[in-house]
Amino acid sequence: MKPNSNLKTYSLKDMEYYKIYGRTDETQYPLPLFFNGSGIEVNVTGSELWIDIDVDYDMHEPWIFTRLNNSFMSRQMLMSGSYSLCLFRSMSPDTVKNMKFFRELQAMSEDDSCHILIRGFRTDGFFLPVSNKKYKLEFIGDSITSGEGTYGAKEDTDWLAMYMGVSRNYALMVSDALDAEFRLVSQGGWGVLCGWDNDPRHNIPSRYEKICGLAGGKMNESLGASKPYRFESWKPDAIIVNLGTNDASAFNQPEWTNPETGETFKQHKNPDGSFDPDDLNRFKQAVIDFLTMLRRNNPDSHIVWVYGMLGYDLTLAITDAMNSYKNATKDNNVAFLHLPNTTDETVGSHAHPGEKSHARAAKVLTEYLKAYLEA
Amino acid sequence: MKPNSNLKTYSLKDMEYYKIYGRTDETQYPLPLFFNGSGIEVNVTGSELWIDIDVDYDMHEPWIFTRLNNSFMSRQMLMSGSYSLCLFRSMSPDTVKNMKFFRELQAMSEDDSCHILIRGFRTDGFFLPVSNKKYKLEFIGDSITSGEGTYGAKEDTDWLAMYMGVSRNYALMVSDALDAEFRLVSQGGWGVLCGWDNDPRHNIPSRYEKICGLAGGKMNESLGASKPYRFESWKPDAIIVNLGTNDASAFNQPEWTNPETGETFKQHKNPDGSFDPDDLNRFKQAVIDFLTMLRRNNPDSHIVWVYGMLGYDLTLAITDAMNSYKNATKDNNVAFLHLPNTTDETVGSHAHPGEKSHARAAKVLTEYLKAYLEA
Amino acid sequence: MKPNSNLKTYSLKDMEYYKIYGRTDETQYPLPLFFNGSGIEVNVTGSELWIDIDVDYDMHEPWIFTRLNNSFMSRQMLMSGSYSLCLFRSMSPDTVKNMKFFRELQAMSEDDSCHILIRGFRTDGFFLPVSNKKYKLEFIGDSITSGEGTYGAKEDTDWLAMYMGVSRNYALMVSDALDAEFRLVSQGGWGVLCGWDNDPRHNIPSRYEKICGLAGGKMNESLGASKPYRFESWKPDAIIVNLGTNDASAFNQPEWTNPETGETFKQHKNPDGSFDPDDLNRFKQAVIDFLTMLRRNNPDSHIVWVYGMLGYDLTLAITDAMNSYKNATKDNNVAFLHLPNTTDETVGSHAHPGEKSHARAAKVLTEYLKAYLEA
Amino acid sequence: MKPNSNLKTYSLKDMEYYKIYGRTDETQYPLPLFFNGSGIEVNVTGSELWIDIDVDYDMHEPWIFTRLNNSFMSRQMLMSGSYSLCLFRSMSPDTVKNMKFFRELQAMSEDDSCHILIRGFRTDGFFLPVSNKKYKLEFIGDSITSGEGTYGAKEDTDWLAMYMGVSRNYALMVSDALDAEFRLVSQGGWGVLCGWDNDPRHNIPSRYEKICGLAGGKMNESLGASKPYRFESWKPDAIIVNLGTNDASAFNQPEWTNPETGETFKQHKNPDGSFDPDDLNRFKQAVIDFLTMLRRNNPDSHIVWVYGMLGYDLTLAITDAMNSYKNATKDNNVAFLHLPNTTDETVGSHAHPGEKSHARAAKVLTEYLKAYLEA
Repeated sequence: MKPNSNLKTYSLKDMEYYKIYGRTDETQYPLPLFFNGSGIEVNVTGSELWIDIDVDYDMHEPWIFTRLNNSFMSRQMLMSGSYSLCLFRSMSPDTVKNMKFFRELQAMSEDDSCHILIRGFRTDGFFLPVSNKKYKLEFIGDSITSGEGTYGAKEDTDWLAMYMGVSRNYALMVSDALDAEFRLVSQGGWGVLCGWDNDPRHNIPSRYEKICGLAGGKMNESLGASKPYRFESWKPDAIIVNLGTNDASAFNQPEWTNPETGETFKQHKNPDGSFDPDDLNRFKQAVIDFLTMLRRNNPDSHIVWVYGMLGYDLTLAITDAMNSYKNATKDNNVAFLHLPNTTDETVGSHAHPGEKSHARAAKVLTEYLKAYLEA
Repeated sequence: MKPNSNLKTYSLKDMEYYKIYGRTDETQYPLPLFFNGSGIEVNVTGSELWIDIDVDYDMHEPWIFTRLNNSFMSRQMLMSGSYSLCLFRSMSPDTVKNMKFFRELQAMSEDDSCHILIRGFRTDGFFLPVSNKKYKLEFIGDSITSGEGTYGAKEDTDWLAMYMGVSRNYALMVSDALDAEFRLVSQGGWGVLCGWDNDPRHNIPSRYEKICGLAGGKMNESLGASKPYRFESWKPDAIIVNLGTNDASAFNQPEWTNPETGETFKQHKNPDGSFDPDDLNRFKQAVIDFLTMLRRNNPDSHIVWVYGMLGYDLTLAITDAMNSYKNATKDNNVAFLHLPNTTDETVGSHAHPGEKSHARAAKVLTEYLKAYLEA
Repeated sequence: MKPNSNLKTYSLKDMEYYKIYGRTDETQYPLPLFFNGSGIEVNVTGSELWIDIDVDYDMHEPWIFTRLNNSFMSRQMLMSGSYSLCLFRSMSPDTVKNMKFFRELQAMSEDDSCHILIRGFRTDGFFLPVSNKKYKLEFIGDSITSGEGTYGAKEDTDWLAMYMGVSRNYALMVSDALDAEFRLVSQGGWGVLCGWDNDPRHNIPSRYEKICGLAGGKMNESLGASKPYRFESWKPDAIIVNLGTNDASAFNQPEWTNPETGETFKQHKNPDGSFDPDDLNRFKQAVIDFLTMLRRNNPDSHIVWVYGMLGYDLTLAITDAMNSYKNATKDNNVAFLHLPNTTDETVGSHAHPGEKSHARAAKVLTEYLKAYLEA
Repeated sequence: MKPNSNLKTYSLKDMEYYKIYGRTDETQYPLPLFFNGSGIEVNVTGSELWIDIDVDYDMHEPWIFTRLNNSFMSRQMLMSGSYSLCLFRSMSPDTVKNMKFFRELQAMSEDDSCHILIRGFRTDGFFLPVSNKKYKLEFIGDSITSGEGTYGAKEDTDWLAMYMGVSRNYALMVSDALDAEFRLVSQGGWGVLCGWDNDPRHNIPSRYEKICGLAGGKMNESLGASKPYRFESWKPDAIIVNLGTNDASAFNQPEWTNPETGETFKQHKNPDGSFDPDDLNRFKQAVIDFLTMLRRNNPDSHIVWVYGMLGYDLTLAITDAMNSYKNATKDNNVAFLHLPNTTDETVGSHAHPGEKSHARAAKVLTEYLKAYLEA
């Protein structure tokens, strides 16, 4: 290998031209990529480009993918360490290349050590301004929005970092179709009220107002994860909430016991298979409370609650809560939309929506948002 | 043309083996086909088959389509008169052919003379029993369910009998996919509470309990259209209600005045574009009342209210009514499902869903019903 | 039915504005439609349009289909007699409608009585000029080009008029995609050298230079079918020859005996399954001779021999003949193109290409012709 | 990162269970992966798997992709050095995982240093036998078969290692569909007679009989690249030759001059745009000679020459040569097949077939081979 002696190192601290994707603490150096879909975009000349990163984890290794001129180029596992990854080589030096580097893996609430930090770049070219997208979209969700199942074979049933991703995710497809920047806040197994296993701590609203309430531990705290998120810094045109799937699951799962306190939690079904009214009401209240929180922090964003990619069970409960919220607040800027359920034909690994299911959902959601945004 | 001297005439009165599609008065002879999707199915040997029919209309000529061995064969306009239509000729005489003859055109509330009556068949073969389908489905709707726009060019804007049909209709596609018999009750421009133009007489519930409340005049009365429908004679596994689109339209249309009484009707919007709460409430009450009527007549049928093929505006109103109905009745056998909206790519004539939109909706609805029916 | 008292009758003799599709004797009145894809196009105002036709046949009834504003509207069997068919009713009288009326059924060499003649129209509007298409295409072929199998169920195995058509035919799809007028000369079971059953009379070249060499009998003769075709009257930009499929079949079929002369004919295979060289040579010579005939009559037309929709067996024989022809004549305006073979997924009735196979072939051929015509 | 202390190192020398893809010198250790599509397959238990490799290059870095249980998992650039790549982590230890590791980049005739060598694996599991595929396929071609353009944006025009690949290549798609092992011998810009730029050294036949005649230099020689390939060691059921595209291009390119000898070469067109007969004849002779070489080395393999993905220009020349070869040898086990041309809709980067074009070609070729192999 002939090393390129013309490479110069650029620290992110000193760089003027780049765009950050995903919620992060922009005062940090090196810059943390907390979420799936967090990343960095540059326009650059030169024949060669490298990115300097710091990576670590205990159990769940992060994956990344890259896009050159908006075309998928690579997807790989990251090893621990502080090192450089080559993003391209041997290109015509004079043309401007658009390079995007994205974290595939969701924020890992189960691995406090897991992180990707960006130090900067090395290139023999120079950087140019990155253009703004037409819209801003925030996606809030669970394993569906974490892209679980978009990689891996249909028969694979492990819960694995490498099966998750944003590269085949409806959130990315919708954003591409609408020319939108995106931020994702999602966690597999979590719900609005509780997790798939009735764990009431695993609710997204409790973490929503921090930069990355899903990343715990000292390391992440030092990276700014637990700081309050500055909502005024990035105002989404639309917020897509894709939650409820795990809340529905909880009704079919055994009671959860807090290992530390012994406290228990359980959403019940009646003997006839219907939802227990009280338990359903606390789910509805959680929806109402989350809508209230979303609106408080995002006064002008259109909020669309999407649901259905893994079953339609809580449709009427969610809409009931939305109607209650709407009646109480006179907030008409909220909507509900079904996304088509996943089928044998469209399922991916671990019984989660595969790329085809994401594509179908993305089409319906894109059409909806296009009609709304262009109205 | 060499006439086939072996043809024998079979009167429906004397025939043992055939299956009627669509609500009708089965005591009548000749047998009226009131609705789109009304028709007759036979299994027959022989080289040739003709159907003997009586047809008339004032303004809106009926169309029919035929299926040989479940494959689309013909679609044509019917002229007035009492005559025979040849359904096939020159076939291998010994094989059993499955022949279906369907009315394409909806019941025409605006043309009291419009009718198709079946007298019987002529063939050189003999009839065999017709097998039963696995499921029974009832579809209730407006112009979408009347298949308006499934024929005709995108730029065609006439309101025309020939643009309507069941042959490219989601109702037929879903029934085919699920191996189901179907009955359709639909009328273009009508709603749950009122028509697209605020005409409060144009609500489907007011006609639902008759055999064909949509066909008026003395002729239709003599054909049994206004008799009470015997719900116990055909118990649908699922009832698909696709209404609300015209109710949404009424909010944007001028006040309607009854030409006879001077009475007026209007669904209002507030200056900020939101729905007037009182007007929305009477729409919701109409949904609740219709659900109540459906359940009274169909105690065991799954009821799924589908919505969205021409806009999602009343989603929260419909679901609010459904939740109210559910809370009041403890009836858990009702569900709500979005069908994907029609786009530039899928639109047909007269700004209505085209065949592609019907196909997309049919896929989502088929998947839903399959999951329900096979659970 | 309220008759429209404003209808006026227009004889084709007196009409100025219309376009004839398909080879015919334009001096005849009424005007014969000899071929599948033969038809008439008009632009007309008014609320209503009827076509006046004369129809007869012994065994094989003709079918037609209509297109309103280039959108499929009807397909039906024609009965014998002299009568009027209503093409549309109740339309907005002032708009101009484009109406096309096409024969579905191939010229029937086996039914000398089979014919459709056009007398004229009846309308309450008036006729306007019909615009010219961008290109002219001639398609020459066998049952594939006769659209056999494009209607009918996969399990249907009769050889039937109603399974044939141009409405789902690759020839129509290609012409639509390229904005081209078309003429079809095709006959099921026929080849370049001989028919599928080794009948050497069933070769298309022997009939190609007459207006309709496939329609026999006195009636057709009086209609001008056996007159020489005036090639200078309509110069195709491209001639698509889709022949060879039945010539390949002949190698696998028993010897044919002329019932009148006792003469026999048979294309042989060697014991190892390869083609007998002498028999293959007479096939190649037939290809060479046909190319020579095509070029003599169409000096400037691009000739593309397409092959493969029902098997690739004679690919090298056809191209060998084409190379011989090319070397001998220095004619470089000929080309060979495979169309994708029909599969289980794309097959129609009677083991022939279904609509999906036609669509796939049409895509490949359209792309080829587009590149050629726009070069 | 918590290192897995249970990993054991397995040298390929000592391993019993694995399958090698692609031509190589199996006596070498470490084992060279010369071609795109060269790779290794293992079945393994355990939670974690690493592959130990040696990589180097001067200019053109190799890319690889991995498949877990036949599902695409990663694609990445390889850096120079001797190191381990983690293929999976944290999986359920008891299940058997099927892991495939493939070289994406073609053999690089322009970079003698470019190589990937496999030393072995590290795992906490154990290896099991790898099952055999149903068929064996050899693909011989140019940039199309090297998958150039299957990655990269439509507007990207660099000639780049990273735009090439086997992961979105028709060869892989066909092999997957038919359950076949595959070997690829391809080089971008090369032809049967000469390269796209008239360089007569750039013909595939001259390199075909060595293990990897495309990899030059001392390093590759020491790796066994220039050893004669042992054809009897792997007998393909079918050989797919996808050549001629660059030979066609040469007719439109300027004369080539050998920089060392001053010798020149040029394929000419006549002023009327037709091919110069003598030049066309030497192309045809090259086809004949290559078919002869292929047959000598592969007495029983079906040989299908496929052509068309970047233009149909030499169709008649190729088939003329095939007919000459066939007549001279009586070898009937050769066939010609068009693959559909690439269109605006299906093109990838650098004006080469994109993934959609490869998918369309793969469908036609799969259907052809399936019919042949299952006959």
